[in-house]
Amino acid sequence: MGKLVIVGTMAFDAIETPFGKTDKILGGAATFIGLAASHFNVDATAVSVVGGDFPQDYLDLLSNKNIDLSGVEIVKEGKTFFWSGRYHNDMNSRDTLVTELNTLADFNPVVPENYREADVVMLGNLHPIVQLSVLDQMNSKPKLVILDTMNFWMDSALDDLHNVIKRVDVITINDEEARQLTGEYSLVVAAQKIHAMGPKYVVIKKGEHGALLFHHDHVFFAPALPLKEVFDPTGAGDTFAGGFAGYIAKTGDTSFDNMKNAVIYGSTLASFCVEKFGTERMVNLTNEEVHRRLLQFKQLTQFDIELA
Amino acid sequence: MGKLVIVGTMAFDAIETPFGKTDKILGGAATFIGLAASHFNVDATAVSVVGGDFPQDYLDLLSNKNIDLSGVEIVKEGKTFFWSGRYHNDMNSRDTLVTELNTLADFNPVVPENYREADVVMLGNLHPIVQLSVLDQMNSKPKLVILDTMNFWMDSALDDLHNVIKRVDVITINDEEARQLTGEYSLVVAAQKIHAMGPKYVVIKKGEHGALLFHHDHVFFAPALPLKEVFDPTGAGDTFAGGFAGYIAKTGDTSFDNMKNAVIYGSTLASFCVEKFGTERMVNLTNEEVHRRLLQFKQLTQFDIELA
Repeated sequence: MGKLVIVGTMAFDAIETPFGKTDKILGGAATFIGLAASHFNVDATAVSVVGGDFPQDYLDLLSNKNIDLSGVEIVKEGKTFFWSGRYHNDMNSRDTLVTELNTLADFNPVVPENYREADVVMLGNLHPIVQLSVLDQMNSKPKLVILDTMNFWMDSALDDLHNVIKRVDVITINDEEARQLTGEYSLVVAAQKIHAMGPKYVVIKKGEHGALLFHHDHVFFAPALPLKEVFDPTGAGDTFAGGFAGYIAKTGDTSFDNMKNAVIYGSTLASFCVEKFGTERMVNLTNEEVHRRLLQFKQLTQFDIELA
Repeated sequence: MGKLVIVGTMAFDAIETPFGKTDKILGGAATFIGLAASHFNVDATAVSVVGGDFPQDYLDLLSNKNIDLSGVEIVKEGKTFFWSGRYHNDMNSRDTLVTELNTLADFNPVVPENYREADVVMLGNLHPIVQLSVLDQMNSKPKLVILDTMNFWMDSALDDLHNVIKRVDVITINDEEARQLTGEYSLVVAAQKIHAMGPKYVVIKKGEHGALLFHHDHVFFAPALPLKEVFDPTGAGDTFAGGFAGYIAKTGDTSFDNMKNAVIYGSTLASFCVEKFGTERMVNLTNEEVHRRLLQFKQLTQFDIELA
């Protein structure tokens, strides 16, 4: 059983979509990544920070999925990171209404001793300096380091971001961010430029338009499952990353062919995430449901042309 | 060898893209459809109209690809349909600069006698009344009728368009047009509504984001090949349709599984079309090049997950 280190936020989210709005509900990159990775029976730890206001129920929910929480710092007098956002009608864009960093502002991640030789490290979206600190705590170079990041760090901490990008094997990034990071409109050219920055594998997420996996001259594409409606996209990217990381940690196979499967698992899990608000759909998702949807992905994409 | 009737424009196009501009070059839906369909060794005829200014070379180019031109009316004193457009930087949108209908304004299509029992009819983008006239000339219901259309006819001839939609088996339409036709943002819901209008098969083209094939509860997705640059998108949709129609005419198999292959062939041929201006890339395209790119499509999309 592979070991997986997840670093990321645990948060309160308040979300508005055309379908409704929520009060503060469970959110955060580490939460979504952990819930997705829990489908692979790996030995995962979450490295994060919360305030004294973070309900024990939320922590139990993750422990019950066998996510080790010994690396989650609880700042009793502090408040948990809070994010609020409103999605536009097309669900592809959103406005951030509130960002309260709270305890996240002074987060010093500590990787638990017994996870410092983990095979796979999943660096969820956070300040690049926090991500670097996690890498520095590993006893040896992990088999695979996966980085998720966003445009916010390109605007505010680009040098630090480049320092972490150069040390990771896989980067997951959305299409607009890939364009911003490289100044290239073509995603093929953007991926080449990101390869040159360090990562051997580049995953470009295109939301409802699927995801591309680049490995130099090799490219693989996974569509998003066509859905009647996308209810709430919050956490879909983290869920994708968690599925990807969990599958790699489980199989221990970092070949390109196996990464294709990891991308499909990530897309499959993300397709559930968007069906309900926040973590609601992920919390009770069964392995049987995941398997049924994997079959849908096969039917969606597989064809059988005999070449003359 | 299946028979295929193609109806559509033959035209002069003048194109501006961020990469350059052309004088009047060969264009038109029937031209692109014919060039694509010629890769399948089918007995195809093009039903169209041109003016006396249309070069014999252009006609020879199509005859040399074994496209029967006995249904192409040449109006000696008339001028050929002319379209000019300018693409924006993202290549996903364009402005029409000039539309001169010329001989197209009075086009009365005549299907050659020996093609009135053809298996497959490809109705290229034209006034729905012209498309209906072609259907009315067929001696019996063809095995498969495929319709391509665009938002222009939704704005200007919606009732006529509905009359043709209700008589076809397959419709190809782009995402924005599917939304306009149905008033639904979700492409899954839009496809359901289009099914209810008549077509059992609905192909929604998403440009660089690929194409979806719907058949009630079944759905298949073909990505566009990720390219370093899209040089000129003109004719890509027609080329897709021509590849689709040609493959069905060749195989004579209208099952959903075979239509998946038709979508892949359409996407493959369209991926060449955009590499150069107008028909330039299609004119000399070899079957060997097509086969090599089909293999790329396989590598791009095929995966092998063993489900536990």
